[in-house]
Amino acid sequence: MLEELKRQVYEANMMLPKNGLVTFTWGNVSGIDRESNLLVIKPSGVDYNRLSPEYMVVVDLNGEVVDGHLKPSSDTPTHIELYKAFPNIGGIVHTHSTYATSWAQAGRGIPCYGSTQADYIYGPVPCAPCPSKEEIEDNYEKNTGLLIVKEFKDIDYQAVPAVLCKNHGPFTWGKNPFEAVNNAILLEEVAKMAMFTERINPNVMPAPQHLQDKHYSRKHGENAYYGQM
Amino acid sequence: MLEELKRQVYEANMMLPKNGLVTFTWGNVSGIDRESNLLVIKPSGVDYNRLSPEYMVVVDLNGEVVDGHLKPSSDTPTHIELYKAFPNIGGIVHTHSTYATSWAQAGRGIPCYGSTQADYIYGPVPCAPCPSKEEIEDNYEKNTGLLIVKEFKDIDYQAVPAVLCKNHGPFTWGKNPFEAVNNAILLEEVAKMAMFTERINPNVMPAPQHLQDKHYSRKHGENAYYGQM
Amino acid sequence: MLEELKRQVYEANMMLPKNGLVTFTWGNVSGIDRESNLLVIKPSGVDYNRLSPEYMVVVDLNGEVVDGHLKPSSDTPTHIELYKAFPNIGGIVHTHSTYATSWAQAGRGIPCYGSTQADYIYGPVPCAPCPSKEEIEDNYEKNTGLLIVKEFKDIDYQAVPAVLCKNHGPFTWGKNPFEAVNNAILLEEVAKMAMFTERINPNVMPAPQHLQDKHYSRKHGENAYYGQM
Amino acid sequence: MLEELKRQVYEANMMLPKNGLVTFTWGNVSGIDRESNLLVIKPSGVDYNRLSPEYMVVVDLNGEVVDGHLKPSSDTPTHIELYKAFPNIGGIVHTHSTYATSWAQAGRGIPCYGSTQADYIYGPVPCAPCPSKEEIEDNYEKNTGLLIVKEFKDIDYQAVPAVLCKNHGPFTWGKNPFEAVNNAILLEEVAKMAMFTERINPNVMPAPQHLQDKHYSRKHGENAYYGQM
Repeated sequence: MLEELKRQVYEANMMLPKNGLVTFTWGNVSGIDRESNLLVIKPSGVDYNRLSPEYMVVVDLNGEVVDGHLKPSSDTPTHIELYKAFPNIGGIVHTHSTYATSWAQAGRGIPCYGSTQADYIYGPVPCAPCPSKEEIEDNYEKNTGLLIVKEFKDIDYQAVPAVLCKNHGPFTWGKNPFEAVNNAILLEEVAKMAMFTERINPNVMPAPQHLQDKHYSRKHGENAYYGQM
Repeated sequence: MLEELKRQVYEANMMLPKNGLVTFTWGNVSGIDRESNLLVIKPSGVDYNRLSPEYMVVVDLNGEVVDGHLKPSSDTPTHIELYKAFPNIGGIVHTHSTYATSWAQAGRGIPCYGSTQADYIYGPVPCAPCPSKEEIEDNYEKNTGLLIVKEFKDIDYQAVPAVLCKNHGPFTWGKNPFEAVNNAILLEEVAKMAMFTERINPNVMPAPQHLQDKHYSRKHGENAYYGQM
Repeated sequence: MLEELKRQVYEANMMLPKNGLVTFTWGNVSGIDRESNLLVIKPSGVDYNRLSPEYMVVVDLNGEVVDGHLKPSSDTPTHIELYKAFPNIGGIVHTHSTYATSWAQAGRGIPCYGSTQADYIYGPVPCAPCPSKEEIEDNYEKNTGLLIVKEFKDIDYQAVPAVLCKNHGPFTWGKNPFEAVNNAILLEEVAKMAMFTERINPNVMPAPQHLQDKHYSRKHGENAYYGQM
Repeated sequence: MLEELKRQVYEANMMLPKNGLVTFTWGNVSGIDRESNLLVIKPSGVDYNRLSPEYMVVVDLNGEVVDGHLKPSSDTPTHIELYKAFPNIGGIVHTHSTYATSWAQAGRGIPCYGSTQADYIYGPVPCAPCPSKEEIEDNYEKNTGLLIVKEFKDIDYQAVPAVLCKNHGPFTWGKNPFEAVNNAILLEEVAKMAMFTERINPNVMPAPQHLQDKHYSRKHGENAYYGQM
């Protein structure tokens, strides 16, 4: 069932430790098949070096396992809310990568200080609030997803493919699992640079809007001219 | 004698350099056999690349060597005090890992800023005081252990499997030597993130108690639902 | 066409990921043949592990492709302006390396705090301003080059082979593509050290001028005595 | 001539890049034969991956080359002054390692914040002043050595086997070239930890003297009990 997507989700998961984004089992990648509305996700708490494509778990949008012998990632309800609210995404990544998580713990979004971020993310990376006591006690992971969706009420999720969850860590997404992983790598790098930027100049301001516009449009939209398109 | 435990303690010791937690010989892992009340520990000052299981030293709870040709780690008396006071632990690790040691040198415990720490440690990591002149001159290593035990007078050592010793470095423990090493890896990562978190937001507050409660109970206790248990 | 230069530019490009200076495709090296006034540059947005010498693109000083099947780097017009203004350089590098880019995002040049920088760069590394809205909308990459050239109005480009572009990242150059890459490696290291230096002593002053003079002249000019020359 | 010492000095030099202490050719190790008063040192500006034992240069205490086809390190006169003033050392290392050099650039000695430093260095690591204009113009490298020696007027060079040279970088020494390299590795690690310690607690004080005394005497002197001695 969904063998090709399982293979992709498996390979995308294996990119996380290879790129230094996870310690232990702290991370997961999912992918969705929009025709069947089924998503494929990493099993919960399984070591990366013991993973293989057939261990991937297939879940429907109600969170019911429809294929696979293992329990899906405990973050599955968060992924489901994002797939429901963001119809054009095909893959989601959650990590506890060091620098992005430090911004999340600090409760701050990441300002756009330069072209590195602007090439991929149009504006700052928002930080969704920590769930309330009630939101945590009842359906914590689902509410985490709903808080992210609420944070994007006035933000284009396709232009800003990343979010921080306060006191927790980052989620990123993309049109498929690999693009979502690339955005997780990008996010960690800009999180690191932004911290150093503020260390070097405590009074630094975000990059001018016209530079952000230019870099984003160099890579995205009908006038893009970066790469071999 | 205790061949299986020697092998485990050897393998757990070798995980320290592999995970970047030690320079030179600065670290040691021990394990205890609770039936015989004998502990197995790394020999003192021996290079990791020259270690092998048969070099591990067997010591009783009075610190007497009962098997092995080498001197045990100079930190053995500290390990002994922890095994005596914490009856449910089976392994102990001491390192000078960079970030955890920096918090110890700074004389501060590590606040819980997010879910990464809360998943493993219930509350802040405490910092035990530096021994006094008298405590150092007479039985320094034993007194280090007693100061840790005193620090845990009102803390559950099973819920907080890590401590910093002021001006020195961290100790971690677990139900066996491997879990103790995993806690040393975890501690180093949260020590790094906590330092970055305070750099990004100097006024940051610890994570809300309800989030700490939730993450710890997701992984521990009868209602745990993380992993394949 | 220019097979030897293509091979050199290819090899110099491959040094960027090997030395940890690029994530994804964020970087490019070019080289120029001063006799034909043709430059060889990396194609735009192609993964480093898919590059080979024959994919290098040959461009004239008007930016017209004269050999190669791929589009040249989108930064080509910046390279061209530098080759036109700096007649003695033979290679140029652009990266988004972490520390140098953080200084660029902070909008600060890198002061010369010691002999490590002084051995290669005579004085501080300047930071060129961010292009204005008009300079970005029309010929952005060319204007980036012109702003760098303007920044060097009173600076000897041979003694200072590096610049930061505000909100963007660094460019370095040299008498050939390999020297330009070496300067990119050097720049990243001194950017890192300078940030740490200010962390350790917020009131630090640049190194005395006589030390800067000595170290630069030990390696450059007719009285140089470093190395096997 | 001095084949065994050449081999040792070669191997000690190769430990520098292996331990991440040098970029390019920024570092050198020497060793001395106290019977003949000849020292063996790395040639100037030669890549580490092109070194071999027979390229090592033999120099007398007047700086004259007595064996070898290459020019000795430009830092040779500094090494000579240290060998002349510190009769019990057999090896010297100079690097531009990132964190130790950052303290040198900041013009601050490294306070002893904990047992990691106290195990190897008895007290703070001193920072020698930057040479004056006259001291730089005439016999710069020799004067660098004399300034270090002056800094140790009231410091025991055997108990403090490391120094920082303001605006330049560190030198370390030991009873042979390998111990000198180990002290360079140790210095870089404590330089990193000390910077982080001050970041975590800006009001931190050095470790109590009694802890410094204990840790140093655990490893050194007649009552040492660390290791298998």
